[in-house]
Amino acid sequence: MTLAYPRRQRQLENLVKKLGLPTKAPIKWQLLDLALTHPTVSESANYEHLEFVGDAVVRLVAAIVLWENYPHCSVGEYAAIRSVLVSDRVLAQLARSYGLELYLLVAGSATFDKAGQQSRLADAFEAVLGALYLSTNNLDLIRPWLDPHFKQLAAEIRLDPAKLNYKAALQEWTQANFKVLPEYKVVEISQPQTHQERFLAEVWLHGQKLGEGKGRSIKAAEQAAAKVAFLTLDNQENTELTGE
Amino acid sequence: MTLAYPRRQRQLENLVKKLGLPTKAPIKWQLLDLALTHPTVSESANYEHLEFVGDAVVRLVAAIVLWENYPHCSVGEYAAIRSVLVSDRVLAQLARSYGLELYLLVAGSATFDKAGQQSRLADAFEAVLGALYLSTNNLDLIRPWLDPHFKQLAAEIRLDPAKLNYKAALQEWTQANFKVLPEYKVVEISQPQTHQERFLAEVWLHGQKLGEGKGRSIKAAEQAAAKVAFLTLDNQENTELTGE
Repeated sequence: MTLAYPRRQRQLENLVKKLGLPTKAPIKWQLLDLALTHPTVSESANYEHLEFVGDAVVRLVAAIVLWENYPHCSVGEYAAIRSVLVSDRVLAQLARSYGLELYLLVAGSATFDKAGQQSRLADAFEAVLGALYLSTNNLDLIRPWLDPHFKQLAAEIRLDPAKLNYKAALQEWTQANFKVLPEYKVVEISQPQTHQERFLAEVWLHGQKLGEGKGRSIKAAEQAAAKVAFLTLDNQENTELTGE
Repeated sequence: MTLAYPRRQRQLENLVKKLGLPTKAPIKWQLLDLALTHPTVSESANYEHLEFVGDAVVRLVAAIVLWENYPHCSVGEYAAIRSVLVSDRVLAQLARSYGLELYLLVAGSATFDKAGQQSRLADAFEAVLGALYLSTNNLDLIRPWLDPHFKQLAAEIRLDPAKLNYKAALQEWTQANFKVLPEYKVVEISQPQTHQERFLAEVWLHGQKLGEGKGRSIKAAEQAAAKVAFLTLDNQENTELTGE
């Protein structure tokens, strides 16, 4: 069923064409309209609930792409790569590549909130995935265009692990394996040797220190500690599995 | 294609019957066999990768069940209910209700590790969902038997929110809304008034204190703080959305 507003209908059909889908595809246009409506436009009919569904959809697509393409990677590596694939940064980048900002209805002061644009776009992108999933109850309207992006990104990340956000990766890893989160303890170093070493972070799990790192900001120190911890854990896992 | 081991094939067919699925269903038996093989049995051919896929599957099913049955709940409530539905405790309980422990191959000392049984069963349950999803590339082999459990559990949780784990709920909420985790600061109270108030926990997000609570253990104090924070946030969200 098409929308009662022919102009919006045409807009959404353009977006669907950009995704490479036939406009005759069994799309629930009302849901797609909702997915591209920010809460500032309507307090009750907006993308929030679809985003909740879409968040699960994007994680599933990422998992399947890894399963199909990297059967020999460790589960730790899966978790690390997926944490990048489903990050706001990557999802907003994909949203922009399809010009999603042209279709997203936003009202009031949020229109000028440039800082919030990345998370708005990522949220709307997830909501679009939710709407497309619920249109067919499968991934048929999603995987044909999303898989190639995820395959390419996964390959890039494997070639250049510096693209990894180790704090997010470690978190995915400990949640997947232990259903708990790592804890960070940060102290300011009283007489740092260099500017790069103003903070010292330790990361702990289950009362055991997994790693430590220094950095010029709290965030940088935590990232450094997370990197040590993640690489140690992932290495242990690989060794255990392969018996090396 | 059936398994080359007729005895295992018959076992798995029994399980499939218990799930209420026809044994003629298009099941990839090799995947189901893998889903029920613990890493102690095989270092390379075990349930770990399927569990990674199944973790995303179970989150998607939970999201869809909430979407279909509770269109007027806040997204905060969705996150809170889902954190219970996908918890190890609930998944292991569902696994036991189908006697999954009878089909799970485990070797060595893990056989006697009763403490680890809950997480093993939850992991294997997720892996089974992964195997069933990948058999058809949709949820057709899963939703007919899983939806009724999730519907009933969601209804129970809404009637009795004490079933909620507020720390998990708050974490789902802040991750869904801000992609960050709340931080807890706990101090031991030097002269507690009662045994119930030995620890004081504060929970913070983005440099802002969301709530505090006391308890006889660190965990209890954190749960109390998380409950205050979660209820405040969810209430604000509802108020903003409905304009009350």
